[in-house]
Amino acid sequence: MNSDVKMKSPKLLLAIFAALLISSFVSVARAAEMPNIIIILADDLGYGDLGCYGHPSIRTPNLDRMAAEGLRFTEFYAGQSYCTPSRAALLTGRLAVRSGLGGRPGPGFHVIYEKDKGGLPTDEITIARALKVKGYATGCFGKWHLGHQPEFLPTSHGFDYFFGLPYSNDMDALNPKIRNADSDGPNPDFHNFNVPLFRNTEIIERPADQTTLTKRYTAEAIKFIEANKRTPFFIYFPHTFPHVPLFASKDFKGTSARGLYGDAVEELDWSVGQILETLRKAKLDKNTLVFFTSDNGPWLQKKFNGGSAGLFRDGKGGTWEGGYRVPGIGRWPGKIKPGVTGEMASAMDLFNTCLALGGAIIPQDRPIDGVDLSPILFGDGKSKRDVHFYYLGDEPFAVRKGAFKAHFITHESYTRNEPEKHNPPLLFNLEEDPSERFDVAAGHSQVVDELTQLYENHRAKLTRGKLQF
Amino acid sequence: MNSDVKMKSPKLLLAIFAALLISSFVSVARAAEMPNIIIILADDLGYGDLGCYGHPSIRTPNLDRMAAEGLRFTEFYAGQSYCTPSRAALLTGRLAVRSGLGGRPGPGFHVIYEKDKGGLPTDEITIARALKVKGYATGCFGKWHLGHQPEFLPTSHGFDYFFGLPYSNDMDALNPKIRNADSDGPNPDFHNFNVPLFRNTEIIERPADQTTLTKRYTAEAIKFIEANKRTPFFIYFPHTFPHVPLFASKDFKGTSARGLYGDAVEELDWSVGQILETLRKAKLDKNTLVFFTSDNGPWLQKKFNGGSAGLFRDGKGGTWEGGYRVPGIGRWPGKIKPGVTGEMASAMDLFNTCLALGGAIIPQDRPIDGVDLSPILFGDGKSKRDVHFYYLGDEPFAVRKGAFKAHFITHESYTRNEPEKHNPPLLFNLEEDPSERFDVAAGHSQVVDELTQLYENHRAKLTRGKLQF
Repeated sequence: MNSDVKMKSPKLLLAIFAALLISSFVSVARAAEMPNIIIILADDLGYGDLGCYGHPSIRTPNLDRMAAEGLRFTEFYAGQSYCTPSRAALLTGRLAVRSGLGGRPGPGFHVIYEKDKGGLPTDEITIARALKVKGYATGCFGKWHLGHQPEFLPTSHGFDYFFGLPYSNDMDALNPKIRNADSDGPNPDFHNFNVPLFRNTEIIERPADQTTLTKRYTAEAIKFIEANKRTPFFIYFPHTFPHVPLFASKDFKGTSARGLYGDAVEELDWSVGQILETLRKAKLDKNTLVFFTSDNGPWLQKKFNGGSAGLFRDGKGGTWEGGYRVPGIGRWPGKIKPGVTGEMASAMDLFNTCLALGGAIIPQDRPIDGVDLSPILFGDGKSKRDVHFYYLGDEPFAVRKGAFKAHFITHESYTRNEPEKHNPPLLFNLEEDPSERFDVAAGHSQVVDELTQLYENHRAKLTRGKLQF
Repeated sequence: MNSDVKMKSPKLLLAIFAALLISSFVSVARAAEMPNIIIILADDLGYGDLGCYGHPSIRTPNLDRMAAEGLRFTEFYAGQSYCTPSRAALLTGRLAVRSGLGGRPGPGFHVIYEKDKGGLPTDEITIARALKVKGYATGCFGKWHLGHQPEFLPTSHGFDYFFGLPYSNDMDALNPKIRNADSDGPNPDFHNFNVPLFRNTEIIERPADQTTLTKRYTAEAIKFIEANKRTPFFIYFPHTFPHVPLFASKDFKGTSARGLYGDAVEELDWSVGQILETLRKAKLDKNTLVFFTSDNGPWLQKKFNGGSAGLFRDGKGGTWEGGYRVPGIGRWPGKIKPGVTGEMASAMDLFNTCLALGGAIIPQDRPIDGVDLSPILFGDGKSKRDVHFYYLGDEPFAVRKGAFKAHFITHESYTRNEPEKHNPPLLFNLEEDPSERFDVAAGHSQVVDELTQLYENHRAKLTRGKLQF
């Protein structure tokens, strides 16, 4: 496949739209069969931070119930291990490096900052754009972080409606010390940040009152559901929290045993409960897929204000499992059989899954890294995915195939250490040794060879999109 | 209270029995109200090793269902962090140091070995002894490890019936190299161990065929349940696995993604399912409390053959949370409201709880360290326990009160490092920082003072039982 397609002119964009339209044949009858889809994305929530993933002191009864009624994934991967590339991958079904959003070469922490001019290129096809063409109402509630110049906002990427922040809530700090603090104390006043709150393309509040963000996102999403009871809808709900600085509304602040981090997660859990309850009341839950996940692992350096990867090694910003492995819960009463699955899946697979459910055709003019999750969710339970690449910046550092993961480059997240190259790679059996404690390369030369070839082939074929930072 | 009671003569033992009998007034009518009680104890299973506690590749559908139907504890403590003292504490409701089974002074790994002559003193009152006096049928299925001389076997401690091993399955190794191997490969043939299998006081097989132990324990326990449908019964079911060396029956060997460790845990999960199914079929499950837990955290040094403490620090043999914090699940349909509890509880509390359910009176002539769990299980949900002591050998190393834990002595388990004393103690907030990463002593001098006083008072009042090793 050719990843060099670069279409930026309005004419070419129109051509994409036309192609998608032709393949769709929207009809009223068909629209009635198209399920609603809601993707809820937490920010920096670790694998170990929910009750149903074993956290001892955070209480998440709504997500636990969602997991009990649905399918809980234990091998679900974020698109990348920090905000911008992870979101790009989820919405486009492509490794972020392909859209120029993977990051700069080498380790580091490359996201779109408030002064950046770039964003998700408008010739990328997001889930929203593909479903909109099929007749879906599309709404984005929460943190975007794929470009805040007008041409990159959600409304330029297939969303009818956007209510939320353009980037992370620690940006626009009026005092850089506050932004960079690894504070374990109470969080700063929201007035210390100049983060804007958008409705569509307009700033409606600045600084955003972050203490009520979760509540307001939720209220807006509920209003959107209620306004679209008779139209298939796609909701992308990327929460602002538990990314630092942490804020919780007065109903939640100080109520969790886990401190402010727990307050924020428990409010997020409440929000999920509200969405599910709205679906029930509107009698939509048997026609709606809800999928919950996180954009990456926990920000461990934030100490008390960072989450937990459970038994996994390291966290956000790295290529150990703790950075990539996140909660994944799919719920659709009557369609998804309740249970737990150890099948491998990626946030990028949500792209293919949503398009399949909406009757949209997967773009054929560019590499797509996602696969359809339908067999896991509704079919024989088997994944079409057997391989996962772990990027740091614009470079693959590791690859997993089946149970085995080979690290060709390693780097402890958030350190200034130089990345360390490994030849032969470090090899871990993730199913027998999920915590990546015991290198087994010595006893598995055939696996090492196979993974090395996979890795080298991938690198050789890779075409990087134009860097957006 | 006086813990110096030393009664060893048959006459004095008779006196204890008589006292218990007088307080009981067993009647047929009363017997019908007495619930059955089953305690299932895994061996070396870590906090993170079950599906419902977040393990990614071990599948435990029966325990997960038991948790969904019952109450799952997130702050449940083993009696001590290795086999013998943990079991002594569970069965007597007392710190093992009181019965001379805590261990020798200082760190190390003090359990009853095959050449030891000591055991749980016969003037200790076990749950089985207390319930037997009340009319319960009592059975022990699995690993005892509280003394294998005739006077210390289960049948001398209130059990009508015993089927199992007298001690750990790595004992009686015919080749010491095998016993001490931190093997991550396949486990040795069971013929390499000369472990005897007992029925009551008779050895019926030597070496025990360890590959079928879990199956045979289960079959024996089921037979016991079926034989006692009309009698209240107490079953203590301390599994041999997943303690190394790991064995699984041919139905389970090689079937788990987690390797042999997973095979053994999944067979244990199957066993739990069989027990619950037997109760259902016999229409006994609404009259039976089943409690599942583990004797201590994972044996991390066994690499692939050791388990996981999830997000907790360290494992078996230590006083960090990973050594002591274990799964705890209580199920009693109609009596226990399904949910998750963060209330603090200890295996020692099972003593008080069982005695309360069986209508037996808590011994007044000795210190009892357990508290009744009934309020958590059936009442207002609040624990009577606010304090937990962490022993290593015969010495308290740390104490927890509420959210705070103070370490006065620390030692990384299974190292030859000298224990390190701390003055002031290290202080952790376990609810905000369950992984014990951030010492907060500096900011909490009042808490430090309170915990220091608690610790010193406890040590000052402590009377150690005569060492049994």
